[in-house]
Amino acid sequence: MMKKVLDKGYVRLVDTMGSDLSVVNSARVSFNKATESLRDEDKKLIKYLAKNDHTSPFRHATMQFEIYAPLMVARQWWKYIIGSSHQDPFTAWNESSRRYVTEAIEFYIPEENAWRSKPENMKQGSGDNLGIEIGKEATKKLLCQIEAGMKNYDWAIENGIATEQARLFIPSAYGLMVRWYWTTSLQGVAHFLNQRTDDHAQFEIRAYAEAVKSFAIDKFPIAIEALLI
Amino acid sequence: MMKKVLDKGYVRLVDTMGSDLSVVNSARVSFNKATESLRDEDKKLIKYLAKNDHTSPFRHATMQFEIYAPLMVARQWWKYIIGSSHQDPFTAWNESSRRYVTEAIEFYIPEENAWRSKPENMKQGSGDNLGIEIGKEATKKLLCQIEAGMKNYDWAIENGIATEQARLFIPSAYGLMVRWYWTTSLQGVAHFLNQRTDDHAQFEIRAYAEAVKSFAIDKFPIAIEALLI
Amino acid sequence: MMKKVLDKGYVRLVDTMGSDLSVVNSARVSFNKATESLRDEDKKLIKYLAKNDHTSPFRHATMQFEIYAPLMVARQWWKYIIGSSHQDPFTAWNESSRRYVTEAIEFYIPEENAWRSKPENMKQGSGDNLGIEIGKEATKKLLCQIEAGMKNYDWAIENGIATEQARLFIPSAYGLMVRWYWTTSLQGVAHFLNQRTDDHAQFEIRAYAEAVKSFAIDKFPIAIEALLI
Amino acid sequence: MMKKVLDKGYVRLVDTMGSDLSVVNSARVSFNKATESLRDEDKKLIKYLAKNDHTSPFRHATMQFEIYAPLMVARQWWKYIIGSSHQDPFTAWNESSRRYVTEAIEFYIPEENAWRSKPENMKQGSGDNLGIEIGKEATKKLLCQIEAGMKNYDWAIENGIATEQARLFIPSAYGLMVRWYWTTSLQGVAHFLNQRTDDHAQFEIRAYAEAVKSFAIDKFPIAIEALLI
Repeated sequence: MMKKVLDKGYVRLVDTMGSDLSVVNSARVSFNKATESLRDEDKKLIKYLAKNDHTSPFRHATMQFEIYAPLMVARQWWKYIIGSSHQDPFTAWNESSRRYVTEAIEFYIPEENAWRSKPENMKQGSGDNLGIEIGKEATKKLLCQIEAGMKNYDWAIENGIATEQARLFIPSAYGLMVRWYWTTSLQGVAHFLNQRTDDHAQFEIRAYAEAVKSFAIDKFPIAIEALLI
Repeated sequence: MMKKVLDKGYVRLVDTMGSDLSVVNSARVSFNKATESLRDEDKKLIKYLAKNDHTSPFRHATMQFEIYAPLMVARQWWKYIIGSSHQDPFTAWNESSRRYVTEAIEFYIPEENAWRSKPENMKQGSGDNLGIEIGKEATKKLLCQIEAGMKNYDWAIENGIATEQARLFIPSAYGLMVRWYWTTSLQGVAHFLNQRTDDHAQFEIRAYAEAVKSFAIDKFPIAIEALLI
Repeated sequence: MMKKVLDKGYVRLVDTMGSDLSVVNSARVSFNKATESLRDEDKKLIKYLAKNDHTSPFRHATMQFEIYAPLMVARQWWKYIIGSSHQDPFTAWNESSRRYVTEAIEFYIPEENAWRSKPENMKQGSGDNLGIEIGKEATKKLLCQIEAGMKNYDWAIENGIATEQARLFIPSAYGLMVRWYWTTSLQGVAHFLNQRTDDHAQFEIRAYAEAVKSFAIDKFPIAIEALLI
Repeated sequence: MMKKVLDKGYVRLVDTMGSDLSVVNSARVSFNKATESLRDEDKKLIKYLAKNDHTSPFRHATMQFEIYAPLMVARQWWKYIIGSSHQDPFTAWNESSRRYVTEAIEFYIPEENAWRSKPENMKQGSGDNLGIEIGKEATKKLLCQIEAGMKNYDWAIENGIATEQARLFIPSAYGLMVRWYWTTSLQGVAHFLNQRTDDHAQFEIRAYAEAVKSFAIDKFPIAIEALLI
């Protein structure tokens, strides 16, 4: 199952473990009774656990994704993992490397009508979309810059410069598409969603978060609803 | 699937995510090719990764267990998790509590021929089994002590002492059976096995480790073989 | 610096790193200015960070404790670490082991006026103190049980039973005093305090939490005030 | 204390907690004796712990750094933290963000004699330095590319494009200088050094690792010597 995101990216659900019941059964270990189908009292328990911040049972269900996204999105995703306040260590991450040539270099190029203005009264984030005039020029300039930079990059490779150092010529590295596997618990997914579907999150990572969210709701409808703020 | 351990305990495999292929595919994210069945070159890759300590791909497969074991085993298990040198944070743990009365109190009672001697020349561990004479007396003394202590415990509960404090009367708390859910990655499983199937580990936890090991080999034969020292 | 807790326990502050300023300076890395004394705007920043759950800067200051406490307190402390919802992985823990004989065996013995009743309308916790009549009998019974059990334990050791197995005879293992080093971040300390100074926490661990709290307030007055709920 | 690295970067030691003795005392908690100066037997204990992979005592000493480095170095540093086999969760990381304008944009520019060739027979890494002819041209091309790209970036900002999106015009983002605070345990430092002072590590991150190493040796001479492979 794959959902397309932005112009060239995607989120693919690779695997999952458990269901809403995994939360219930791990929470009820104290009571030595495992449930096999989700009753009303189980749904209430899930809501109670989430509301009262007893979220350890949500670490007994896991999800695995393959993601293809611009580097700037990958960086924000990572920051949530190692910099977040609730730091969920239950995370595995394996990413392609640009230290060696592996696959075609691709860039995220915002479309002409997708360039956003600076927000008013805020240090970060975006305001409304800019007009098509600016947008046309911005997309064109970016394409030109990438074309010119990639000529330098190709020149560097042809002249024997090591790939790991030739990277300095990659002309729009924040837009460079990278690919990684991410495995985390349901709590990790929910925490990511609470941060990255927020209005303050950058548009591009929100687009990825929405894809993750729809997979999560599909597999763990009660638990995700309970965990999302 | 459940395996009985010691006189009253067990390990139950609750769930798993992935297979040997999960290791291969997360490691090969750099190369953008997912494999669907395990070829010889995939087996070689798994061995190479394990041998060279590139073990992050082994965190993309997970296992979940329910365990019923004496408290002294639970404590050693935990120490591996928070005290170990390779500290795998990819772990969820939910355990029953003795702060409230939940289920019958049970104790681990070594059989008459299962009492072990002090090791020679070592600070910890066990030597050979002791003779049946000592063993008979030891088992009998333990049963008597438990009977007498449980009378005190029952007296305390009947006289209104809070359960959380009445616990002080539990007469062989190191042998008290506790139950928990444990979810971890394949790397976490392997690390636990490398520590706890070792000769230096206490007999009781080795018995649990062997049960975990047989489940792990069954589900991830190539990866576990590669990770075990 | 050491604070006595319960009848035989203590919390000792071994070491710390940083001050309230560490929080400010790590949060302001974006702005490339380190402050050397705490101004009003710095105090405001600390409150803002805590209130908005931007708590990663609170992981750049650390505290180290040596603790001597009953096993039941050690277990609750651990559960906060591996089972808590905010799971702070920034924790090191080294504890003495009862697999080998190291130091005198000591037990926590509640005083005659310190036995508590079951709470009404709650599954766990304690109600008011019980009368001195029950208390006298409870303390006496516990002392007797310990004396009888320790005779069995000594018999086991004298007859060559391995220490790791002889532990089963320890007569009040939940009250057995254990000792450990705990190193964690300021965020870890605050999270522990928010859980363990709460009314729902068991009296015994609250006593330890109060000792930890007074050390924390002494060293990081602004940050701890901001983090405590 | 600050050490300059590459053309514009540095590593600054902000703070530390503990000494070689912290390792000894946390390991000896079992024996209830704290040492106040480092004796020969303490040095032996440190070596023994490191050699036998009993490294949890090394998590009771901490170091804090401020680092200013090219983005490609920051990315490799992060990968060690979340992707490494020994994953040390004892890490706090706070980094400046390019989502808002904070300080001058600076780039790492290799000097004319610092461009390296592709390695023979290896997928990644670098071989010998290339001749000065190629180097002169590479440095010049990079400077030109940066100048042209920064014109686009400035145009984007002037025309009201949001900073978070204008980043796409940053012309050599892998070389963009970023700044962060890193707090970790002694074990975390040693693990980073073992990976990043290795011949297979990229030259640029090795330069940072050497700076970290000299600070670590200065503060924890015995422990670091024991931990480095």
